[in-house]
Parts: sequence; structure tokens; C-alpha cells
Amino acid sequence: MAACIFCKIIKGKSCEIPCFKLFESDKTLAFLDINPLSKGHALVIPKFHGEKLSDIPDEHLSEILPVAKKLVAATGATNYNILQNNGRIAHQLVDHVHFHMIPKPSEEQGLGVGWPQQPTDMDALKALFEDIKSKM
Amino acid sequence: MAACIFCKIIKGKSCEIPCFKLFESDKTLAFLDINPLSKGHALVIPKFHGEKLSDIPDEHLSEILPVAKKLVAATGATNYNILQNNGRIAHQLVDHVHFHMIPKPSEEQGLGVGWPQQPTDMDALKALFEDIKSKM
Repeated sequence: MAACIFCKIIKGKSCEIPCFKLFESDKTLAFLDINPLSKGHALVIPKFHGEKLSDIPDEHLSEILPVAKKLVAATGATNYNILQNNGRIAHQLVDHVHFHMIPKPSEEQGLGVGWPQQPTDMDALKALFEDIKSKM
Repeated sequence: MAACIFCKIIKGKSCEIPCFKLFESDKTLAFLDINPLSKGHALVIPKFHGEKLSDIPDEHLSEILPVAKKLVAATGATNYNILQNNGRIAHQLVDHVHFHMIPKPSEEQGLGVGWPQQPTDMDALKALFEDIKSKM
């Protein structure tokens, strides 16, 4: 995708933004986020262009979590969040699948997690389960 | 781990809590979260017990994202977050690695994302890059 900023980084054609590449293979790229939430905040992306997780073939996802582990080790993070957002409402800002590895060194730095837990309705949950299970 | 609630679910020995299993293989289990943030909120876990992502061997992670994709398809989610928390301060409540697939149907439901972006210091970022890169 010519207009995609992450595809430009993959092709080494991004002159507008610096790219701090930490890992590269034929399928996968990892680099520092230039607008970090905390020190060491980095991204892992498949080179295959797709907007959302469901757009990426399984074989292009196989290195994502192993590379995220490498980032954890190299940054020395002990507490951290792995996050992948899909859709504007879910806080996705670049439409090329990317996984954040965000160290959480303190309450103030790193990802803020809002957890608006719903009251659990076991009967509704059971009905939903039967429905989803039938589509797996 | 005898005391781990997710290991109990894996072994089918959890009498205290119901388990709505959506997918199971020799390495991976997926089930509905019984305290959902939104309709369809589900978890994917490796059967291998480990507290944090870095504790899980790569070969036990290979199915995680493909199974998360299955959950997305079966729930019909269009906007969603994939989240894996490591450490109490990073909102990890159960000490067995688990990936959340949380549909985001509205601003009020699903994951709340707090994004305390830091001012970007390019010189500091470059120095950090050299340091992390040397450890990859």
C-alpha cells in the first residue's frame, strides 16, 4: 500500500519519519515507537499489509509473539502490556496491523487500562456461548 | 500449577467456575471471559503454565493469534482489542498468560485505552535505540 506509513518503513522509503529498526526478517519488522508511552515502547508488525488482525494470513503471524518476547528481553521490561488495536473506536491510528509492547514502569507511564466490567448474567452468557461455539 | 485457576480449567477440574470452552487443541485453549467488558469478550491461553509472556516457549505460542482470529470471526467483532497483560501494575489478575479478545462495540463497552504519550526526545530515543538494539 503506497500510502501506508508502515509499508513505507518496510520498504525503507520513509524519509519523513525516522525508523529505529530492532528486528527484521522476511515476514516481520520491529521498531521503536517514536511517540512512546514509556521508555522502550516498541512495535512488531507483519510485513504483509492488512488493516485488522483478521486480514493477516496465519503464516504471517507466526513470528509476532516470539519477536515481542525478544523486545521484552532486550528492554529489560518486567511489567508490560502487549496490545493490538483494531478500528478507530478501539484506538487504532495506523491501518496496518501492529502489536505494541509497552513497558509499565509506573502507574503514570505506559498503557492506561480501563476495565468497565459488566454484571455477569450467566444465562445470557450460556446462550452467547452456544451461539459463538456453533460458529467456531 | 495446582493453585492456578486456568490450569484447573485446562485439566477440567474447575468445579468452582464454569468454563465456556470455544477452542481446544493440545497446546491452546480458548473460552469466554465470565466477567466480560463487552459481549463476546474471550480469552486464548497456552496450556503451558507461565506467568508472563517471556515465560512461554515459542512453540507454545504458535496458535495464539490464529485462534484469536477464529474468535473474531465467530463473534462477528469488527472493532476489537487484543490485550495481554504482564504484572499487577499492568492489570494482570491471573498469573497464567492469557490473551484477551475484547470486542469494542461502543465507547462505553469494551477496553478503555489510556494513552499518556510522552514528549518525543529524538536524541534520547536514538541513544535508547542503540542500547536496545545491542541486546536484541
